[in-house]
Amino acid sequence: MARSASGLAVGFVGLGSMGSAMARCLLRAGAKLTVWNRSPEPARDLGEQGATVAGTAREAAACGLVVSMLANDAAVDAVTHGDDGILAGLPAGGLHVSCSTLGVATAERFAAEYDAAGKHYLAAPVSGRPDAAAAAKLAIVTSGDDALVERAAPVFEAIGRRTFRIGARPADANLAKLAGNFLITCVIESLGEALTLGAKAGIARSDLLELFTETLFDAPVYRTYGKLIVEGTFSPAGFGLPLGLKDNRLALEAAETLAVPMPFGSIIRDRFLAALASGYGDLDWSALAKVVADQAGTPAA
Amino acid sequence: MARSASGLAVGFVGLGSMGSAMARCLLRAGAKLTVWNRSPEPARDLGEQGATVAGTAREAAACGLVVSMLANDAAVDAVTHGDDGILAGLPAGGLHVSCSTLGVATAERFAAEYDAAGKHYLAAPVSGRPDAAAAAKLAIVTSGDDALVERAAPVFEAIGRRTFRIGARPADANLAKLAGNFLITCVIESLGEALTLGAKAGIARSDLLELFTETLFDAPVYRTYGKLIVEGTFSPAGFGLPLGLKDNRLALEAAETLAVPMPFGSIIRDRFLAALASGYGDLDWSALAKVVADQAGTPAA
Amino acid sequence: MARSASGLAVGFVGLGSMGSAMARCLLRAGAKLTVWNRSPEPARDLGEQGATVAGTAREAAACGLVVSMLANDAAVDAVTHGDDGILAGLPAGGLHVSCSTLGVATAERFAAEYDAAGKHYLAAPVSGRPDAAAAAKLAIVTSGDDALVERAAPVFEAIGRRTFRIGARPADANLAKLAGNFLITCVIESLGEALTLGAKAGIARSDLLELFTETLFDAPVYRTYGKLIVEGTFSPAGFGLPLGLKDNRLALEAAETLAVPMPFGSIIRDRFLAALASGYGDLDWSALAKVVADQAGTPAA
Amino acid sequence: MARSASGLAVGFVGLGSMGSAMARCLLRAGAKLTVWNRSPEPARDLGEQGATVAGTAREAAACGLVVSMLANDAAVDAVTHGDDGILAGLPAGGLHVSCSTLGVATAERFAAEYDAAGKHYLAAPVSGRPDAAAAAKLAIVTSGDDALVERAAPVFEAIGRRTFRIGARPADANLAKLAGNFLITCVIESLGEALTLGAKAGIARSDLLELFTETLFDAPVYRTYGKLIVEGTFSPAGFGLPLGLKDNRLALEAAETLAVPMPFGSIIRDRFLAALASGYGDLDWSALAKVVADQAGTPAA
Repeated sequence: MARSASGLAVGFVGLGSMGSAMARCLLRAGAKLTVWNRSPEPARDLGEQGATVAGTAREAAACGLVVSMLANDAAVDAVTHGDDGILAGLPAGGLHVSCSTLGVATAERFAAEYDAAGKHYLAAPVSGRPDAAAAAKLAIVTSGDDALVERAAPVFEAIGRRTFRIGARPADANLAKLAGNFLITCVIESLGEALTLGAKAGIARSDLLELFTETLFDAPVYRTYGKLIVEGTFSPAGFGLPLGLKDNRLALEAAETLAVPMPFGSIIRDRFLAALASGYGDLDWSALAKVVADQAGTPAA
Repeated sequence: MARSASGLAVGFVGLGSMGSAMARCLLRAGAKLTVWNRSPEPARDLGEQGATVAGTAREAAACGLVVSMLANDAAVDAVTHGDDGILAGLPAGGLHVSCSTLGVATAERFAAEYDAAGKHYLAAPVSGRPDAAAAAKLAIVTSGDDALVERAAPVFEAIGRRTFRIGARPADANLAKLAGNFLITCVIESLGEALTLGAKAGIARSDLLELFTETLFDAPVYRTYGKLIVEGTFSPAGFGLPLGLKDNRLALEAAETLAVPMPFGSIIRDRFLAALASGYGDLDWSALAKVVADQAGTPAA
Repeated sequence: MARSASGLAVGFVGLGSMGSAMARCLLRAGAKLTVWNRSPEPARDLGEQGATVAGTAREAAACGLVVSMLANDAAVDAVTHGDDGILAGLPAGGLHVSCSTLGVATAERFAAEYDAAGKHYLAAPVSGRPDAAAAAKLAIVTSGDDALVERAAPVFEAIGRRTFRIGARPADANLAKLAGNFLITCVIESLGEALTLGAKAGIARSDLLELFTETLFDAPVYRTYGKLIVEGTFSPAGFGLPLGLKDNRLALEAAETLAVPMPFGSIIRDRFLAALASGYGDLDWSALAKVVADQAGTPAA
Repeated sequence: MARSASGLAVGFVGLGSMGSAMARCLLRAGAKLTVWNRSPEPARDLGEQGATVAGTAREAAACGLVVSMLANDAAVDAVTHGDDGILAGLPAGGLHVSCSTLGVATAERFAAEYDAAGKHYLAAPVSGRPDAAAAAKLAIVTSGDDALVERAAPVFEAIGRRTFRIGARPADANLAKLAGNFLITCVIESLGEALTLGAKAGIARSDLLELFTETLFDAPVYRTYGKLIVEGTFSPAGFGLPLGLKDNRLALEAAETLAVPMPFGSIIRDRFLAALASGYGDLDWSALAKVVADQAGTPAA
């Protein structure tokens, strides 16, 4: 499914640190890009790099294929609906590729709305921090109709290193993404507890982490987050705490709908709240481990 | 530190599935092995493979270098003390290499006792399931005096693929091992929760696991335990639930001594108890994920 | 603040088991009652007892003082808004006394809406099970403007045994009510754990409960819920599990808004989900204790 | 069972704040009291009030009926065993009434030891803080042989307001006591969470507490601990945090033996550890609620 994005007309809505990096990947791949962002500066930057700057999300969607990368369900709602929105702007048969991490119920609702309007919605949440986005190394999770996935393939090719198909329903990709983010928070918390235990006994966090990552835990997630925890580098935020809390909330909402007790998810929720109450709202979500260390009376690193 | 075990006189005490596999590695490496086990059959098997069968742990220790691999603190206590024990059997300056996963306080006590007797105790807990032991691919964690580690190096060479030095105190290796086992249980629980969430939404556990292990969670621990969970293969037990509970208890005891709150550790504890109450005492410790699935009203696999 | 309801014109919307009992109390106190319910039967019953049956919530509100008792935020939304709703029906200066247990954010939104329309909204959630409602022994929690509370006093007099003033903001009463319901769930869970611990050791649940209620725990909440747990009488539901989950969700939402970690609240949440997954959705919320017993492998009673 | 203690020869071992108050009650009731304590000052004080001061626990036990009130299992072990201990000192058929809160396994072991020596051990843990002890208003929980309870009745009469019989096995009284203390910690934690939630919303803790204690939660335990929490009076300690942690550990040990998951108990455990890590080791165990407030970023009171 590797058609190139070269020459392809693509709209892009949402130019935060992730979205801007993804949009630049599309430009590099030769796409004819039209961008829009609520605040104008990031769009202007992309404009200087060759993108057309649209006045509304509607305009960005007019080419028939639009990608969005936004912070939360409400933001996607805002750019989708209304006279200036994507849904109004897409021509019949047009496709909205939604790369944000959204709630399952929201994704189901969007899919139904687009369907009713004779247009298409494809959930394609992406995994990776901004540096991975800049390097076009995101992992993309998508679900639903094969033909839509095929159509979005050039976009995925331009921004990611691999695309995963999960489940048959449009929202399955979102659930899979939320489950993956949940696993990351579990790694942060469990590493936080293990390293704090060792640290209070006098074992250097770095030594213990090396033992783990050189044995059973030889995975990027332990190396990446372990390094942040060991060095106490919780700022600048690659993925901010409030976004992490949002994804946790969405996972727990799905768990409630499906009647799945998730005690680890509940612990993580309370950690996020303690982090906010401790004034860590501007830090990276790995600062959950700082809360772990705080409650044990040890400095985090 | 790679002197060979060839021709080296080594005693071995504790011939369960792990201990027997380790002892066979020593035989293969050419060690002159004297073995002892509480029940005679496993010792007889090793005897047929070339080991000398001792009548007591004391006899096995007489050669001055003895390795033990036992189920818990009480078992190590039993083979250490008394007239027939290792401590009595070791000559002055002799070394006991303790490969079991013991509590921190117990390890500290042993180290002090051997020291007081003019003998040596080296904590060297091993990581790996029985198949890794059979293939001489265990990871060994050790701490304490360099000279003792050097002396035990031929044994480590024969049974493991790598030896890690952690911390300066004799018991640090035990704490590191307990922390690692704690991380494994967190992987089991978090995977259990994530895969159950997906399964109740209709996403195949195997698809979701593949997504994880092909992205951030590309580590042996997710592949190994993920496969057990996805296939529901909780029996036969590679590492039995009661042993897992024992290690959890030792980790929580260390956490109490050090005043480190470990909420994930507490959740795991209650999962183990629910597993026992559900009659899963004979299953592998990965059956924690079966409890997760049970409480969500789904079959585990 | 004890003016009588005799002769007072009152509308009543929402005639479930609680609402019907409260409406009958108002009839007994001599109020000129106009009732409305989404499904007609309960209204017809009240009609036979002397109430006027309205065709819409709007009609019930026309007298200028209307009480509502509904299952959740969405139901209050539904009867409030629209052409047939309470907000349209209330004359200028009219008062809506909302006795349901609603979310804090919802209550704040209602208060602002009524205020903007020149009408009044008073949060007055009630505590007590249906038998207490029938006996006019509810506890009423209210907050906000003194003059409004004074105006609603005859209603409170007719349905309750005591009215508590909590906080200055309209929504404070709701938060207080949610906090109280949270405490009840903590009593259910903690009693469940304590009685199960005793029962597995062979101590009769009834003996242990008596010890508690005759000493420090001599409170209605321990007697009432303790009896349900000891006897295993989880059906019929005095307060259904799904309503309990709803209140837990509202409490946790408030906790998230305020950044208050509530680990007991999180445990309760997962218990509710396990209860639903176990098929206990039709039982009383005290069946949380049945989940406790299940997970310990003991019959509940 | 109300024979008087007047003229009865009683030994008393363990004169902390609780033990001293209980011993004074026995003196007031006319008992011929012989006391012993590890550190001499408290014994001297009792001596000045009319007690005979013994040189060893053995001497205090010589009269055939000895009461002990000590901090933990190890302390009871220390005064029981050895040449100077209670077991050696009691004449054949003598009775040791153990009022401390001990672990279930320890109590079972003691009962067996005394039995084997032709002597008797009665578990009779007491409930109440030092002021209740001084007022002879303790609640006494006892279990086991009727004849032994009858024999200890004058002592119970002198120190308590009521004696409860629970279970048939000697250790049942200890389990019941531990279960009761567990319930108290659940009240502290749940009140802490509820009052903190309210406080962050601007509702005075005292108002919310009054609402609770005037409605469903009208019990001494909510009034007593609620007052401590509302006023932030965590010092001096009526019942010290480390003692609370000890009782929590004993309850969780019993839960492990019986395979009873106790998630509330686990939360409490981690709260105690966070309290110690925060330097609250000298405070009353109600300071668990201070940890709750800390983690929400609010001052406790």
